[in-house]
Amino acid sequence: MHHQYPSILLESAVNELSRLPGVGKKTALRLALHLLKQDKQDVIRFAEAIRNFREEIRYCSCCYNISDTEICSICASAKRNHRVVCVVETIRDVMAIENTGQHQGIYHVLGGIISPMDGIGPDDLTVDRLEERVKRGDVDEVIFALSATIEGDTTNFYLFRKLSVYPVQITAIARGVSVGDELEYADEITLGRSIINRLPFEKTI
Amino acid sequence: MHHQYPSILLESAVNELSRLPGVGKKTALRLALHLLKQDKQDVIRFAEAIRNFREEIRYCSCCYNISDTEICSICASAKRNHRVVCVVETIRDVMAIENTGQHQGIYHVLGGIISPMDGIGPDDLTVDRLEERVKRGDVDEVIFALSATIEGDTTNFYLFRKLSVYPVQITAIARGVSVGDELEYADEITLGRSIINRLPFEKTI
Repeated sequence: MHHQYPSILLESAVNELSRLPGVGKKTALRLALHLLKQDKQDVIRFAEAIRNFREEIRYCSCCYNISDTEICSICASAKRNHRVVCVVETIRDVMAIENTGQHQGIYHVLGGIISPMDGIGPDDLTVDRLEERVKRGDVDEVIFALSATIEGDTTNFYLFRKLSVYPVQITAIARGVSVGDELEYADEITLGRSIINRLPFEKTI
Repeated sequence: MHHQYPSILLESAVNELSRLPGVGKKTALRLALHLLKQDKQDVIRFAEAIRNFREEIRYCSCCYNISDTEICSICASAKRNHRVVCVVETIRDVMAIENTGQHQGIYHVLGGIISPMDGIGPDDLTVDRLEERVKRGDVDEVIFALSATIEGDTTNFYLFRKLSVYPVQITAIARGVSVGDELEYADEITLGRSIINRLPFEKTI
């Protein structure tokens, strides 16, 4: 449907809002008219928060997690074990693992995963910087925490070949039946991996 | 789910984005990370468009449509018939009617509808300003284009009583079976109105 907007200011706002993923022109108009009903100061704060976020956000020069500062809060923390590095694809994965509260070490964000189909190779990722960290002898253990996909496995294998020449322990997060899942509904590959990677029972309780 | 954001800038952006209607924390994070992937200049333009919209938008001093200027583009147009005024609830309705291309006159935006249940009375709307326009003798015809609801009918009736003391023609948009609708699926009240308001066949083709 063609819309004739009564205002260029409204039209610009609608056009910009409709650039958000999953937001069409109709939703964008609804959002704009919603913003019109809010206090002016609230909308200014809204716009400034987005602008500041995009303008001032940085990537940690150590782990490539997003950060407000040169070094992110995790890499800067004295409470973390800086010799255990968990390798993840994206900052979302950092947040997901942080939410578990189970990782006491630090991170390395690859910025993606090796995927020849999408034309993404090691040079598009922060693989070299990971190798440097290991080479410098900063790391005792590297934990691979990538997706359980062909691309994830490929990347794990590539990284393993790169890093295994250094005196570092290389581990990968466990694959298995999700906690709370009924066995009969687990897919056979996951279930198979669960059996292969079985643990002494004492370690599972 | 509790999120520990790795950055205050990200956290602020997510908090602000989640104030949009229908956007939860999870979607807000997705939107923020999407903005992170866009060009800095594009995101600045996005934020500025929203800020400018909210800061600079005005309401037309004649019809109360939103406008970039003191008088909106419709009220300022020499191509419109300024003596035919279509009364609508909101600026969305102005846009809907403009999209039909069937109204050559101008508008009056009430800013809502009389709804005692919601505590909205005539004083909360621009009823007085509409009466002034009519009283000044600026208007030959007032077209009521309000919702086909009890509130719409109540408002129509209230406006009719206010305005019928002046020498002005008062009309209301037709209610009837939607174009393209099969007769058997039209509700009986709409169908009834269609019959009461039947037209000479020559006028319907």
